[in-house]
Amino acid sequence: MNNFDSTFDYIARVLQKTARKAYEGYVISRLWHKINDPTVKLVPQQYVNRASNLYALTDVYFPQFKIHIEVNEPAHYKNNASIQKDRKRKAQIEKNTGHRVLEIDCRKKIELINGDIDRIVNFILEQKRELILKNQFIPWDEKENTGLFWRRKNTLDVDNDISLSTIEEICKVFNINPSKIKRGFQRTGGAILPANSDILVWWPAEKTRNGWTNCEKFDFSEIEEKNSDRVKSLEHYEEYINLNQRRIVFFKHKDILGIDKYKFVGIYVLNESKSRRRKSLYWKRKSKKMQINPFLIL
Amino acid sequence: MNNFDSTFDYIARVLQKTARKAYEGYVISRLWHKINDPTVKLVPQQYVNRASNLYALTDVYFPQFKIHIEVNEPAHYKNNASIQKDRKRKAQIEKNTGHRVLEIDCRKKIELINGDIDRIVNFILEQKRELILKNQFIPWDEKENTGLFWRRKNTLDVDNDISLSTIEEICKVFNINPSKIKRGFQRTGGAILPANSDILVWWPAEKTRNGWTNCEKFDFSEIEEKNSDRVKSLEHYEEYINLNQRRIVFFKHKDILGIDKYKFVGIYVLNESKSRRRKSLYWKRKSKKMQINPFLIL
Repeated sequence: MNNFDSTFDYIARVLQKTARKAYEGYVISRLWHKINDPTVKLVPQQYVNRASNLYALTDVYFPQFKIHIEVNEPAHYKNNASIQKDRKRKAQIEKNTGHRVLEIDCRKKIELINGDIDRIVNFILEQKRELILKNQFIPWDEKENTGLFWRRKNTLDVDNDISLSTIEEICKVFNINPSKIKRGFQRTGGAILPANSDILVWWPAEKTRNGWTNCEKFDFSEIEEKNSDRVKSLEHYEEYINLNQRRIVFFKHKDILGIDKYKFVGIYVLNESKSRRRKSLYWKRKSKKMQINPFLIL
Repeated sequence: MNNFDSTFDYIARVLQKTARKAYEGYVISRLWHKINDPTVKLVPQQYVNRASNLYALTDVYFPQFKIHIEVNEPAHYKNNASIQKDRKRKAQIEKNTGHRVLEIDCRKKIELINGDIDRIVNFILEQKRELILKNQFIPWDEKENTGLFWRRKNTLDVDNDISLSTIEEICKVFNINPSKIKRGFQRTGGAILPANSDILVWWPAEKTRNGWTNCEKFDFSEIEEKNSDRVKSLEHYEEYINLNQRRIVFFKHKDILGIDKYKFVGIYVLNESKSRRRKSLYWKRKSKKMQINPFLIL
């Protein structure tokens, strides 16, 4: 048993990572300590889609409230062109995601910077109160970031930043018998949903495994599935091209803290035309949100 | 002109450094943000003297209140021997310095850790109120850590963590004409007090300069003054051994943020017997506290 509180450990390590940039670290640690509520989740370096082919990483994201914070160092304001560029970037993020982007200007005096952060803190706490009133607030508890937690919640949403530690936890989300994921001494790359044989819960990995690579687009809009062995790849293509399978995908990757995690990235269907053209499987994201039982794409 | 607030810049960089240890970083950033008062100074990794030849670095020090904080990671409590050893260390620090040492136990749940930190925050703010009532509180202002500031205050105390950026600032403390510190293109290693010709304001350096080395004991109880050139060293010894000079010392070193600083380390007199025995100058600390004008060892 670990001799520490998992939320404490998570947030301490997040603050450690974000402190690599001094001003950003100051702002993020102040946000955390002034919000002063371990049920409010804070995610550093959140990936967001700005426009069709443009991406951005925001400095902090509060998934429960869909609020991003950008910490602008003094250099950020060095010229008008860079200010304009950033204004455009911010507008794109807000338009594309429907999220809010709030900024902190680090050129100010410390009392004013603190005041600006505190205003964001109050705004977030207000949002929390509103969600509670509407019975829509999901308290964050790192210990409960388990399969069982999400099965009870019955909804998976990419925007909720769902990351599980093991394949066993993924199985718990869908009530899959964990014996189903063993293939001799190896593990399968996925498991069929008990109630829907045309839906695969899939856990591809960033790293190559038994020759299988899964190249994902940076925004997870598409995942390619191929084997370094061309024959195996083609066999696999033939097996799946007409199957009309849908896939619930948990992508295995190292999180910002360097820990292996399976992150829910959405529900995927085959991009048939592209797959046929290239004789390789290309999965495209159909939705970021689903109901678990009964299965429903939201 | 710098485009940032100097207190903000200092504390952001301190939090960045202390975040190297995740739990320590969490505690220190929470202390800072919850104290929420830029007039309260926080110093990381404060050196303290435990006993005659024993030293310690405490995790955080609040010089205005003489309070040290120790952040104890779970590993700290791994066995009884290590707990006992630390209890002894803490008692030694408190006895030797007269300061208070408070501890944070990181094995607890996050809510309890936060509660413990908040109790320390309240205690510190209480200490501040008491000092204000007694008219003894010196507000911290990184911008005012100047020679003029200390000259007006008229007292130098090692426990106040006085660090100046340049020799010119040192001169301002004592109203020394800065032209006195130039020797052709070079700079002197010190300057005589205008009103007390037997007192030298000295700024030895960690690094060797023109062959001169100043080996200090880790606790600054003693500084050796010698030149790599034995002849020069002996001449210097002959010049000073009977002079009965006292020295106000600002030691040049790189601070925790890697910036050159002249740190006030005390008032020194010659350790005559040791110096004669070794034919080299050994300066021993006589006091950590002095009045500037008129000069008085406190």
